[in-house]
Amino acid sequence: MSQESIPAAINLGEKLALFSEHWSPKIVAKMNDYYFKLVKVEGEFVWHSHPDTDEVFLVVQGEMRIDFRGGAVELKQGELLVVPRGADHRPCAERECQILLIEPVETINTGDAGGERTVIDLEWI
Amino acid sequence: MSQESIPAAINLGEKLALFSEHWSPKIVAKMNDYYFKLVKVEGEFVWHSHPDTDEVFLVVQGEMRIDFRGGAVELKQGELLVVPRGADHRPCAERECQILLIEPVETINTGDAGGERTVIDLEWI
Repeated sequence: MSQESIPAAINLGEKLALFSEHWSPKIVAKMNDYYFKLVKVEGEFVWHSHPDTDEVFLVVQGEMRIDFRGGAVELKQGELLVVPRGADHRPCAERECQILLIEPVETINTGDAGGERTVIDLEWI
Repeated sequence: MSQESIPAAINLGEKLALFSEHWSPKIVAKMNDYYFKLVKVEGEFVWHSHPDTDEVFLVVQGEMRIDFRGGAVELKQGELLVVPRGADHRPCAERECQILLIEPVETINTGDAGGERTVIDLEWI
């Protein structure tokens, strides 16, 4: 980076106001080979795992639950969870929940499960 | 991971309540080879850069400023900034500000500058 250019602050609330659809992550930042993605979730996602990477969920607003085969984890605003690589999990939210996801650039939302809820070409916002 | 074990939610506010010292990052989570660290800052840190990695600041509470050679970036609660690898920067806060840092495990707080404010053995909380 040129010493003259400076990076821009990213306001998560302002970015979240730019979209309304559920289960469609939007990229807001890149750190090395990781993306920071905002996503709004409501209802139940598919069971899946990411065989090659951990994945971080940070709840920005609302509450959600992540089901694992061994039990469920409740997450509320200001809480984060590291989903270990290879762990089957299913994100769920009774009401809309707004999340920051942090994971490698190549990570696919449905992991090893694939299917119709897979989102390939993520949008930067 | 065993399918029977489940990861624990990490409440950032509760973790922040566990310490009071400034400029002493505490590890709260690990994702692959990255740490998530909480730090409370107040006053002016040293100019430094991280030649090998980007670094993310996410303000959990308060406000801060990150000075770059080309200008300053103001950050408030709910805002994040990616400090590009190699960019000289100096974090500052007029009043206490609470931050989540995300960076590779081997990243040192003072980067290439070293000196007495370097913290080597980070504590997990």
